[in-house]
Amino acid sequence: MSGYLVKVLVEPRPGLLDPEGQAIERAIQELGLPEAHETSVGKLISFKLPGGSLEEVRERANWIGQKLLANPVIERFSLEVEAL
Amino acid sequence: MSGYLVKVLVEPRPGLLDPEGQAIERAIQELGLPEAHETSVGKLISFKLPGGSLEEVRERANWIGQKLLANPVIERFSLEVEAL
Repeated sequence: MSGYLVKVLVEPRPGLLDPEGQAIERAIQELGLPEAHETSVGKLISFKLPGGSLEEVRERANWIGQKLLANPVIERFSLEVEAL
Repeated sequence: MSGYLVKVLVEPRPGLLDPEGQAIERAIQELGLPEAHETSVGKLISFKLPGGSLEEVRERANWIGQKLLANPVIERFSLEVEAL
């Protein structure tokens, strides 16, 4: 095992207005899929980290997500850590 | 089965400069993970579509990705379709 691939998905909090998602939904509908719904737009940040335990990598990635990647007032994030 | 969840991941083409990814990588490194590397930033658009066959939904989602969501000069996209 040579490290981990960390994926952090940052999404608007449910219930908050998501103007980018709404604009994209309208465009999808106008492009011929009028039945598209519940469109949301998130940002997926991925990076690689060398060794360490899975537990430790998850903890560090979680800390990075909180400190740097998501704005907790309007966004939430979820983590995925994959051993390489 | 009551429809499909479509996820479209739009990423910068490999080999192209990704200034947002570079800026985030520097910030992650300065936040105490100097070993972070291969950082990339993509956009994940998800929406729901009612019925139809999986084949048909994939084809329509692929068309939407090409027409609307990805700029083929600088980006590539990948699809995931999940039955609900």
